[in-house]
Amino acid sequence: MLLAHQNTNAQSKETITRLAVLEIDSAYLTEYKSFLKEGVEQALKKEPGVLTIYPMAEVLRPTHFTILEVYASKAAYELHLKTPHFLKYKNGTLHMVKSLQLINVYPLTPQFTIHQKRKE
Amino acid sequence: MLLAHQNTNAQSKETITRLAVLEIDSAYLTEYKSFLKEGVEQALKKEPGVLTIYPMAEVLRPTHFTILEVYASKAAYELHLKTPHFLKYKNGTLHMVKSLQLINVYPLTPQFTIHQKRKE
Repeated sequence: MLLAHQNTNAQSKETITRLAVLEIDSAYLTEYKSFLKEGVEQALKKEPGVLTIYPMAEVLRPTHFTILEVYASKAAYELHLKTPHFLKYKNGTLHMVKSLQLINVYPLTPQFTIHQKRKE
Repeated sequence: MLLAHQNTNAQSKETITRLAVLEIDSAYLTEYKSFLKEGVEQALKKEPGVLTIYPMAEVLRPTHFTILEVYASKAAYELHLKTPHFLKYKNGTLHMVKSLQLINVYPLTPQFTIHQKRKE
């Protein structure tokens, strides 16, 4: 309960919500997905400040990805950038990424917060 | 618990996950957001088959919106299209929408399901 309360507070105050939109070189598609899945799994298991990280691939354009990311705070985001699992993903996939847009967004109905199952 | 179990099953089998990406005429921005918020609130309150509907506006381009939508099934989606609140939103905002893309996606880490708070 305490954790749930903290998350709710965080989501209403200093959370960072972002969409990462990527196009991946089709030659590396399988490998990229493997790196991405591992990075997401590790972040959700190890980082309480990563509230949501939800990677999606397009059905009709399988090399196009959108990742919804919600961080508890700017500090939580900066911590995420320094984790071994994020660095492994980032450095391991740099040559696979044809384009990357990082789009800061805000939820229009923040009273309906998103929660993500944290453990397999 | 029963409901949670049903939702988890649904999310692993026949859910539909989609991104709606819209650009709105800036002349109608305030009015559009009002329609959108009301439509989302009503869907989350009244439709159990709408598992998630999370509308986001871009910080740097406030006329650009992305809505993450997760429906329990194709039937749940078709039901949603016939609800009074969806029709009010759709018909009330047609003239405000400069572009609309509906992008079917699939989650890469479906074991980490998203849940949304349903009531204010």
